[in-house]
Order: sequence, then structure tokens, then C-alpha cells
Amino acid sequence: MAVNTNQQGNLHPMRHSLAHIMATAITRLWPEVKLGVGPVVENGFYYDVDLGDVQLSDDDFEKIEGEMRKVIAEDQPFERFMKPIDEAVTWAKEAKQPYKEELLNDLKRAGTTMAKELDADEIGVATVGDSKVEEVSFYRNGSFTDLCRGPHVESTSKVGAFKLMRISGAYWRGKEGNPQMQRVYGVAFATDEDLQAYLHMLEEAKKRDHRKLGQELDLFVFSDLVGAGLPMYTPRGTVLRNGLTHFSEEVRERLGFERVWTPHMTKKDLYEKSGHWAKFGPELFLVKSQETSDELVMKPMNCPHHNQIYASRPRSYRDLPIKYMETTTDYRDEKTGELHGLSRVRSLSQDDSHAYCTPEQVEGIVGSLIVAIHDFYRVIDMELEVRLSFRDGSDGYLGDQELWDLAQGKIEEMAVVNHLKFYKQEGEAAFYGPKIDFMAIDAIGRRWQVATVQFDFVQPQRFGLTYTDEKGEQKQPIMVHCAIMGSFDRFFSVYIEHTAGRFPVWLAPEQLRVITVNQEQATVDFAETIAVRARELGVRVRVDNDNETVGKKIRNAEALKVPYTVVIGQKEIEGGELMPRIRKDLEVSETHDSRTIEELLVTIVHEAKNRVNKTSL
Amino acid sequence: MAVNTNQQGNLHPMRHSLAHIMATAITRLWPEVKLGVGPVVENGFYYDVDLGDVQLSDDDFEKIEGEMRKVIAEDQPFERFMKPIDEAVTWAKEAKQPYKEELLNDLKRAGTTMAKELDADEIGVATVGDSKVEEVSFYRNGSFTDLCRGPHVESTSKVGAFKLMRISGAYWRGKEGNPQMQRVYGVAFATDEDLQAYLHMLEEAKKRDHRKLGQELDLFVFSDLVGAGLPMYTPRGTVLRNGLTHFSEEVRERLGFERVWTPHMTKKDLYEKSGHWAKFGPELFLVKSQETSDELVMKPMNCPHHNQIYASRPRSYRDLPIKYMETTTDYRDEKTGELHGLSRVRSLSQDDSHAYCTPEQVEGIVGSLIVAIHDFYRVIDMELEVRLSFRDGSDGYLGDQELWDLAQGKIEEMAVVNHLKFYKQEGEAAFYGPKIDFMAIDAIGRRWQVATVQFDFVQPQRFGLTYTDEKGEQKQPIMVHCAIMGSFDRFFSVYIEHTAGRFPVWLAPEQLRVITVNQEQATVDFAETIAVRARELGVRVRVDNDNETVGKKIRNAEALKVPYTVVIGQKEIEGGELMPRIRKDLEVSETHDSRTIEELLVTIVHEAKNRVNKTSL
Repeated sequence: MAVNTNQQGNLHPMRHSLAHIMATAITRLWPEVKLGVGPVVENGFYYDVDLGDVQLSDDDFEKIEGEMRKVIAEDQPFERFMKPIDEAVTWAKEAKQPYKEELLNDLKRAGTTMAKELDADEIGVATVGDSKVEEVSFYRNGSFTDLCRGPHVESTSKVGAFKLMRISGAYWRGKEGNPQMQRVYGVAFATDEDLQAYLHMLEEAKKRDHRKLGQELDLFVFSDLVGAGLPMYTPRGTVLRNGLTHFSEEVRERLGFERVWTPHMTKKDLYEKSGHWAKFGPELFLVKSQETSDELVMKPMNCPHHNQIYASRPRSYRDLPIKYMETTTDYRDEKTGELHGLSRVRSLSQDDSHAYCTPEQVEGIVGSLIVAIHDFYRVIDMELEVRLSFRDGSDGYLGDQELWDLAQGKIEEMAVVNHLKFYKQEGEAAFYGPKIDFMAIDAIGRRWQVATVQFDFVQPQRFGLTYTDEKGEQKQPIMVHCAIMGSFDRFFSVYIEHTAGRFPVWLAPEQLRVITVNQEQATVDFAETIAVRARELGVRVRVDNDNETVGKKIRNAEALKVPYTVVIGQKEIEGGELMPRIRKDLEVSETHDSRTIEELLVTIVHEAKNRVNKTSL
Repeated sequence: MAVNTNQQGNLHPMRHSLAHIMATAITRLWPEVKLGVGPVVENGFYYDVDLGDVQLSDDDFEKIEGEMRKVIAEDQPFERFMKPIDEAVTWAKEAKQPYKEELLNDLKRAGTTMAKELDADEIGVATVGDSKVEEVSFYRNGSFTDLCRGPHVESTSKVGAFKLMRISGAYWRGKEGNPQMQRVYGVAFATDEDLQAYLHMLEEAKKRDHRKLGQELDLFVFSDLVGAGLPMYTPRGTVLRNGLTHFSEEVRERLGFERVWTPHMTKKDLYEKSGHWAKFGPELFLVKSQETSDELVMKPMNCPHHNQIYASRPRSYRDLPIKYMETTTDYRDEKTGELHGLSRVRSLSQDDSHAYCTPEQVEGIVGSLIVAIHDFYRVIDMELEVRLSFRDGSDGYLGDQELWDLAQGKIEEMAVVNHLKFYKQEGEAAFYGPKIDFMAIDAIGRRWQVATVQFDFVQPQRFGLTYTDEKGEQKQPIMVHCAIMGSFDRFFSVYIEHTAGRFPVWLAPEQLRVITVNQEQATVDFAETIAVRARELGVRVRVDNDNETVGKKIRNAEALKVPYTVVIGQKEIEGGELMPRIRKDLEVSETHDSRTIEELLVTIVHEAKNRVNKTSL
């Protein structure tokens, strides 16, 4: 179990100490417990325990947490000591801890080199010795002793805030056929405030689950007949899909990007040429023609296609930069088990773009794309963090090292010049060049990789792309890849959870709902008149004239999170003014006033046209 | 060789008589000629001849045509007579016509039943006899006699106008390995006027060939690496693609159609359920997952996907009609040899739509679609003809005969009520229901099948689609399919040839070109100012500031058929007025006047916004 190294400061020893404290508590409650291992994981810790016939459930959490709090209150110091390996085995035997005994015997047999392969990290023990394991480390708190590498906090009272979360089954050492253990999970943070924030985030994430909201708001559907990982977008979902992709195209259109269109399948040859086949071959869907012997594949990305458009006629320096963009669907053969709602699909639509330019132009293009990405996410109402994804020392990168160094230096310079909040990470580059990756932070604090700007020295060379320079010489253009949402589907899953389905007016599938208080002709006519006028102005409107109570109809509109709802009765027909119901998150004091339908429609049109998000209302 | 039965009146005997007249002429010129067969084909006729070492070329046409004109001037009557089969064989032997002899021997051997399999139609002979062929028919004109079924015109002078067109190689009876014949093609029409019109049309069609214009105007490209039948659209082509598809969606959006999105692949199961697999299985691209054992295919149509969206939640009569539309790409495994530019591709994008409705609603929906299709083609500037495609007596149609009769009756009634110019054709229905097919007539008189409205009783039943009616009972909706362009790619090939690439302003990839007379800063700045203002107004503009002569730059703009061009020099900068050059087909007298740039831009915006076509200028 890899330890999460991203935890700041003291959190790791706190969490690990809590694993010991939980083991102490369980030992006190069920003295016959046989302990497995108890590592730190993301946001907390667990311990694997064998309680024989005793089956733990969430109902036991109160009891275990109570006992843990006693151990914490006892403020037991954590003491580290070493034992010769044979003595350690004897200790395990005497303590009736067969799992610990097995680990120690394995360590003894394996020696220090093998100990690494046995994953001493998982076992959680420090070893002393050159080739043979001579000594192993222990920690003791009160009467509880555990084989352990540490480090721990000073004493059991220094562990911050925690909460037990769930129990799951786990085979001893992860191997099917081994005894089944019970894995008890807890989360832990430095302060109760942090813990509460985390628990609140979890609660929020559950409420916002895009699969649940997708169903409730009728945004997308799956079908067994169509297959796993192949979503279909309903009319409501498609309004959002088109709204977002058009906006993404619009911010690049302003920079001179032009739309192109390419098919979804291609001969395998294209990816052999690009280098993608060698790298991503097994992730591609293979397409078989029944008429010809053509070996085809579904496109998993679009750059090689765009290169073919570039290559279709001679280009001069006067034509550069040439900028293509295409919102299109790529297909990747993801494992069925890894598919998850819209987050991981087999048909991912990308808002892709490629610029071909001279070395002198590349900085301006990348700079303008950075601005465009920020423009987009400002409207989307998400903050961005930037990761500079550089190569590491491993193989598998194509292209000249010198060019890489130059580009990585330039990228870092540009990140500074553009005042980006950034960090560097080696080993995250594409095989053809370094990247600037953008992480969006959602409303409940989660980070999601979204936009990307990438340098590419490899494809222009592999495809023999050229332009004629001022002197009449053939030169190789530089290629810049950019996507603003990345995978639209994944972005949409993030955006649904970010907004909890309360989409701003410009994206709301239904912007206005008109509810009739009765089904009298005059009422229905008036409602329809409003709808006709709304549609004339481009407002997405729906009349609810069902034979239901007004209360029920209002609840239906609220369930669909419609921004504006008006109720039409005698008063509205006679007065000509309406008191619109406004979705809570959009409400500002003055919008409670009654107004004419024309005033309301003008407001909606204004918000839609200017892509107003809630904070700017 | 199937005879074209669409020729009106006397054209078929005229063309067939011309085949005999040409054979007469060739026999006079090269007495040693061995004749094959000489049927009527679309717009004319041919004769296959074996001239030994003599190789005919276009240079011989004058001589052959001259001799034919003599035969025509001789006004030889065509006389029909019968010969017993054995005498006929003797005749062929004596006439030294081994191909005729072979045909007669085969006929004799084969008997009357087998004669049909031998394609007596191709051989062109009438036979007499019950099971054995006893007699065969001949025609004689002057000293020329030919085995022939007829009918012919009265005499050689009654053949209208003709012209020899080309010579190609053809194996005797179409079989590789058989002797190679020379096939001499001619076209023929009732009057010289008709012939000249046809020749002019051919000339025009050649000039308008969309593959040639696609290259010249930089609209789309193919690549060997991507594969045959898989076009890619360049920025210029994509402007047209999006302009046309958005317009097609817009006319249906007004009718309440809502956009949906579905993936391009699906499990095979979907088409097994729909019935398409049984019917179109071999035309589908098969997709193989390397990760799972899923059997997938590329979608060849979209209705089953849309059915899955319909089926994703319970529907009430109050929700109906439900109307989906999607411009999406389907994949069909066309034979490589049949691929042709954009006319026949493997990746065809459809402007597809499906309405689900009650029996009471179907008439209104079909009626509104008929109007929408006419609205679209009025702007496209093409007249429509309508074919009612009904079932014939053959198998392969699914669904209740009674429903078919009802629907076909209704369709005919609607065609009358809507004043459509229509004809009925049996055997052209879809397997799931009858269709209304629309043929567009292009600028040079050719007819192309484009839009379609189709009834479907089968899929709602196969997919178990239902809605709850007023009484709470589950009912099956009727499905109406509609595409306005059909295959976008094919439509686009027609539209390019229809307009000869002179696209109206609303579709022109480049609406305005600004040409500088020199490269002085003031000139360049002024040109750029115009471009910036044009872009603000949404005008597609390009500045040509290349170091070329003004004449060359104007010719470049003309070659790309840019609607408006302005030349910027000192006079324009000082005067603030421009004398726009207007593409010839758009020119009307008053547009020659000089005007301010703002006036010109307003004109362009107006034409684009209102989709003005040339005739309405």
C-alpha cells in the first residue's frame, strides 16, 4: 500500500499513530484479535484485523471510537525499540499473532534485499542488517506493542481529529485464498475543523454525484444495448454539451483558430507514422472492414488527422500560424471495470486544437492560449492551478534533448511572466513534448485536471510537415496542442458536481418555466403567449399546464433546478406583472420585485448572452 | 446490361436503331469486323466490336459518324424477320460472325428457360419456343442484318440527333480472359436541341466536378494514411459544413426538434434488436475491443440510439410528440471501387431526426416537415420533386400490411393536400415503412435524392417503446424519420456542383477580401482596420498584403470565388469610400456604386443573416 506522500507536515505520523491506537482499542475490546497490517492511506488509515467469528459493523464504531478516545486520554508515549529477528518471532508467537509471525519469518528468510521485494514498506517495519535481517523495529504505547517502522507522534494524545468510516473485506496480503480479514478504515486530520470540512465535502460529493444528478436532471443515459462507457446525451444534456463546447470554441475563435472536421476512424498506418501506435496500440479499438482488407482503428486523438490537413498543400511563412480546432469524439478502449459515469468513458469528446507556427510565434500563441483558458474558467467559476509537466530521465520520450530543455525553460519563463500559480512535475510530459496542465478546483475543494497546452517537436518531423521561409527554404513548423475542457465528458462530470446541477442561466437547459394555476383557456393562452415571446427572444422555456396543484408544479420545477419560474393566474393576467420565483443561488435582494414579462425576459437574455455566472449577479 | 426504362416515348428504339446504324457504318468501313452486342444505355447506346489489330480512337469518330449519316440519309427501313435457330447459326457462320454464332449456340443449348439466365435481354434477341429455342428474331436495314429483339424505328432516318463519345475496352460478355473488344459509345436524343443541351450539361458537369472544385477552393482533402472514403474538411470546407448543418437544424428547431448526442459505436445487440443487423449486417464496420470481448459495430444509422433515449424514462401522452435531431456521422463499409469524392464515402454525416408521436399527431408532424424541407431548398435555390416510395409485393418488409396500406394512403393524401409534384414508386420503401423522398434538381438539370420523411411502425414495436395515454393505458408511439440533406457529404458534393463553387454570402468561407495596392504602413494599417471592424461584425474576412501585383491578387480572390473584394490604395484611404468588386453572379446594377466600408459591411451582414441567395438579390 503506497503511502500518500502529499500529506503535509505531521499528518502522516498522526494517522499512523491512530492506526496503532485503533489496534490498541480493538485488542482491549476483543483480546483474541489477530492483527494484520495497518498503514496510512489518503486522508486517513486502516488496520486489517482477524476477529474469528466476530463480524464488525458500523454499529461497533461508537464502541471502538470510545475505547480509542480512552487510549488518547491516557496520553501514552510512543516508544521505539529494536529486537533481534529471532526474538521478534518469539514475541509474535507468544503474543498469539500468527500474521506478524508470518511476516517476521518471511523477512528472516528473505534477507534485506528481498525484504524490499516483500514490501517492507507495507509490512511497516525498519530492518537492520546488511544481507541478512538482523534486527527489526517495534513501537510500544501502554501495554500495546506492534512491529512498526514509524515514525509516530510523541504520545497518543497528539493525534488530531479522527472518525471511523467503514469496514470492508480484504484477503490477508491481498491474495485470494488467504484468510479473509476485516479492514477498518478511518479518516484523520490535524484539527476537528479540517475533519468536519472533509466530512462535509464527502457529504456534498455524494449529493452532487454526477451520475445521480444526471439521472434526476435528465442529462444523459446509458443503455445495455449500446454498451458500457458509451453515454448518450438527452435534449437537456445536449443543451449543456453544446453550450460548453461552443464557448470553448469561441474563446479560441477570437485567437484565429478555425474549425476543421475529421472522421472518427482511420487506417492504422496514420498512428504508426505518428508514433501513437507503438505507445498506445493496446488502448485502440480495432475496426474491421468486411468489404476490404483495410486495417482501421478508431481515432484516440486528433493531431495526426490535423497534420494531414496541414500537409495537404504547400505552406508559406506568410500562412503561419495555421490554427485548427475541432470538437470531436475519440475512442479509447478503457477497461470495463474502470468506466465510471461520465468521468471515464470509451467515447470521449475533446475540444481539441493545434497551432502550427514558426519558432518566433510559439511564445505568443502559448501566451494567448493561457489567457483563453483563464477566460474560460473565470466564466465557469473555477480557480486554476498549473502544473508544468516535464520529462524525467526515463526512456520513451521522442525528440531532441536540446529542444526539450529549451522548451521546458521557455515554459517555466512563461509561467512566471504570466503570473501563474504553478508547480513542476517531472515524468508527466507527453512523449512528444512538455505540457502545461491546468487543474480546476471545484466548489468542494477537489482538484481536476482539465485544460492542457503542449509543445510538440516530434509529430511535425515524423509527418514531414514543412513551410517555406522568407529565404525560400523548407523549415519545420512547431506544433502546439491545446484543449480547454480536455475530455468534454469528464469535464461535464466535474462541472455537474461543481454546480450541483444548478447551472447558470446561459447553460440551463430550461431557463424559464411557466406554471398555470388552472387549466382555464384564458390562463393557458396567457402562458402560451409568454412562451411564444420567450422563444422569439431565444429563451428556453416550458409551459407546465398539467392537471396538478401549483405546489406540485413548483416542486417539479425546483427539482429540475430551473432558474426562473413564473406562476400564471388571474392576477398576473389582469395586472400584466409577474413575481418570478428565482432559484436560490441566483437570488439577489432586488430580484424579488414584480416586473413585466418583457423585463424578466430581457434579464434572462442578458444573463444568457453575457454568460453571467452566479457571483457576478 | 439493364435497359434504362426511364427514357420517355420513342427514345429507346431510336437509340437502339443508332446502335445498328453504327454497326452498319463500321461494317462498311472495316468489313472484317466481328460484332459483339449493342444495347441501349443511359442517354445513348454502344456496340462492342472486334477489329483485330485495328485500334479505334476518338480520331475515327468523324469517319464513323460520316458513314452513319450516309446510312441515315439512305432512309433504310428496319425489317424484322424470324429464322429457325439452326439457320441462324448457319447465317452467323457464313457471315463470319463468331460472337453471334457463340450466342446462338448457347441459346440453342440452353433452351428458353436458360435463355433468360443467359440474359437474352443483353444478347438482344427474341426467341420462340416452349422449352427449346426454336426461332430467333432478326432485324435488317439495307444490307446489314443483326440478331435482335427490337423494337426499332421505322427506318434509319428516324433517329434524332446523336454523337459518338468515347471508346473503352471491354471483355467479351464481361468475362476476364475472354477476347478484348472495343466498346464504342454514343449519346442520342430526339432533337438536336436536346443533344446540345445534354452536351452542354456534360461540359458544365465537368467544370463543376466537386472533386476538382474541392481541391481548387480548398474545401476537403483525402489522405492515403487516413484511408479511402474518409474525407477531412479544411477550415474553408468546415465553414460550409457548419453553415449548412446549422441551417438544417434551425428549420427543425422551429418545429420543436431538440438536439441529442449519441456515440458512433455500439454493441451489435442494438442492431439485432432493431432488425438492421439482419438486413445490413455485411455493410457494417466491425469494432473489436482489445480489453473486453464486447462485439461492437460502427453505427450505420441513428434511429436505434434515439430509441434508447426515448426508452430511458416513462413517457406520457402529455410529453408527446417527442422530437430528437442529431447531426452525426455514420459509417458504412462501402466497396472501395464505389467510393467517389464526397458522393460516396465511408463516413457519412447525416442531419437526422426522429419524432415519436400519437396517431393523431403524425399528420401534423409530416406536414410541417414537408414545409421545412421546402423552406430549406428554397434558400438552397434548388427545386424539388417528390417520390412516394411504397412497398412492392416482395418479402423483406416488416410490420402489419394493414398499417402499410393506411400509411401509404395517408402519404398520398398528404402529397395531394400539400400540392406536391409527386410520383409513386413501388419497391422503394424502407423495410420498416413507406417514405416520402425528395429529389433536388441542380443548376444543370440533374436530379439527386436528398431529403426524406419516413414512417416507422416496426422499430417502436421491436424496442417496446410506449407512452401512457389519457386513460392510463400503455400505447405504442409512431415514429417519423426525417433528414433534410440526407448524407451531408453527398449533399455537399451536389451543392458544390449546383453552385459551381460560387457560394452565397451566408455560406462563403471568405466573404470579403481586402487587397492592398502596396505594402506601405498606412495601406496595411487601413486594410487591417477594415478587417478588425469586419470581424467585429462577424464577417469572414482576409487581408491580402502579399508582395504581388494588384492584378495577381485580384485573380487569386476570383479563383477562390470570394463574393466581395476591395482594393485599398491612397485614394481609398483618403476618400473613405470603396468601389467593391462583386462576384459576377451576385452583381446587380446599383451595387457598382462606391460606398463606405461600413455600408459594405452592413450589406454583407444583411445577406449573411438573411441567407440571401443570388436570385433574391
